[in-house]
Amino acid sequence: MYQLTISDVTMLLSYNDNFLILTHKKPDGDTIGSAGALCLGLRSKGKTAYLQNSGEVTPRYEKYFNTLVASEDFKPNFIISCDIADTQLVPDSAKQYEKNIDLSIDHHPTNKMFAGHNFVDASASATGEIINDVLRGIKVEMTKEIMTYLYLAVSTDTGCFKYSNTTAKAHIIAADAIVSGMDFGTINREFFETKTLGRFNIERHLFDALIFEGDGKIAIANISRKDIDTCEATEDDIDNISALSRQIQGVECAITVIEQKNGTLKASVRAQEPLDASKVCEVFGGGGHARAAGCVVTEETLKQLINEVKERIFNV
Amino acid sequence: MYQLTISDVTMLLSYNDNFLILTHKKPDGDTIGSAGALCLGLRSKGKTAYLQNSGEVTPRYEKYFNTLVASEDFKPNFIISCDIADTQLVPDSAKQYEKNIDLSIDHHPTNKMFAGHNFVDASASATGEIINDVLRGIKVEMTKEIMTYLYLAVSTDTGCFKYSNTTAKAHIIAADAIVSGMDFGTINREFFETKTLGRFNIERHLFDALIFEGDGKIAIANISRKDIDTCEATEDDIDNISALSRQIQGVECAITVIEQKNGTLKASVRAQEPLDASKVCEVFGGGGHARAAGCVVTEETLKQLINEVKERIFNV
Repeated sequence: MYQLTISDVTMLLSYNDNFLILTHKKPDGDTIGSAGALCLGLRSKGKTAYLQNSGEVTPRYEKYFNTLVASEDFKPNFIISCDIADTQLVPDSAKQYEKNIDLSIDHHPTNKMFAGHNFVDASASATGEIINDVLRGIKVEMTKEIMTYLYLAVSTDTGCFKYSNTTAKAHIIAADAIVSGMDFGTINREFFETKTLGRFNIERHLFDALIFEGDGKIAIANISRKDIDTCEATEDDIDNISALSRQIQGVECAITVIEQKNGTLKASVRAQEPLDASKVCEVFGGGGHARAAGCVVTEETLKQLINEVKERIFNV
Repeated sequence: MYQLTISDVTMLLSYNDNFLILTHKKPDGDTIGSAGALCLGLRSKGKTAYLQNSGEVTPRYEKYFNTLVASEDFKPNFIISCDIADTQLVPDSAKQYEKNIDLSIDHHPTNKMFAGHNFVDASASATGEIINDVLRGIKVEMTKEIMTYLYLAVSTDTGCFKYSNTTAKAHIIAADAIVSGMDFGTINREFFETKTLGRFNIERHLFDALIFEGDGKIAIANISRKDIDTCEATEDDIDNISALSRQIQGVECAITVIEQKNGTLKASVRAQEPLDASKVCEVFGGGGHARAAGCVVTEETLKQLINEVKERIFNV
């Protein structure tokens, strides 16, 4: 398959108009940040651009998302997906476009290359990194509003520059963002330094619920809807909760099974090198990154997943 | 007082030799990182340079510190202090030098200008930022070993680029560090992503011990030596524990009183804008930064300190 270059992407953007930009299911900072920056950048070049409504945006992302959303009667000519690895991750609100995505911009190594044109760079810590290059490619003036979205993208996908996926480019974007005068302090406080009481409660629950297998190298916890309700935790409060048990000294793999609103069980897998979480989850029809991935499980396949992890940890 | 420039500092370094570099009491990542980078940088220019032994270095810093320490018979010609705001913060092991410090390099706004030459830049997020400029000033080749120390300095003093003191320069240093090939992943894991069981226990204790005053805007907790022993927590485990309660939504000031080994009570104050923690602590003979400061208290002066915080929060 022909691998697009950044200049191919800039060409596509320059010769098209009326852009609709899609974010993924359970939108996070990278999908919203990269889509928002792209939207504002395209508008600054005189184009018409909107985000497709999601229906899944949680409160702390609303102020970044809602102002850019297309009205229902908007007729797009060019559909772009940001940070979407697979059409399964297109939210229900955008299902009518999933077969007609013209350009996919993404950094997930598991990207299914489903769009007319696919620009996938798995070396990027966030899709926001790629959007930064794209916007500079079409000579967008990087205002503090645009840098706010890019900072949101790279900071959230790197755990505020803490995860091992963090790149020099992510830091350079952050430096440019600070120089632009955007308010990084507020993003850091909102996303990395503030714990609601619901979050506190669910963290405590997680630590109480933890069981260890494989000489303490595997930490497993279950979080049911009832637990979530008892803790008065919101979906935002549960976000990335699975990263916590990986932090305990000696834990190489943390598996957190969270009961979804529809009753399905979602296993979040966090892995320390050399274990590759995305390879484990792919076995069960999921995917993600080497350090963080996920898949849907049943009680039975969860046991298989734990065995898969054990085999990979101990049979190396 | 004449304000030194970076070129004055480079001149002082170029014309002198046999450097002894001092770190502060309870050494942290910035004092060790900036001293270590300076030491290696001076050596790379053919100078003789060592760190003064500290006697207070905790296990996770040992590998960065111990290899650079001067032997007892080293006779220095030029004494430099890194990240030391006040001679009171010179560790006992370096007391014989405290009146003869030739050059102080620091970023604390409360610096007492105690040295023969003082280079203090309070706009720097870490003393490591200043050392970066100094080393480039004397044309040091920025190896991955040197960048490891600088990354240690800026990452720890910014809470891994999370605190509001983080500067564009800190991110640029991190980007340069990553490009140099140093292992930032290990530092991030050791300092920001790993929790010992002792740390877990002491965090839980903190949350149980928390009391709130002033409409939930002030969170206060006491940690006694007995609590620390019960949690099997080390000094490393207690490090920066006071930042945690500030994270609870609505808390503008967190005061954590930790009983020291010698029985004195140290109050760590973490403040959210516009409250200035260093101004609060200065009233009680302490100091620090706007967002994080500390002072020694008694049960009586602790009450006064809480009142001081209330007045500043509510009488604005």
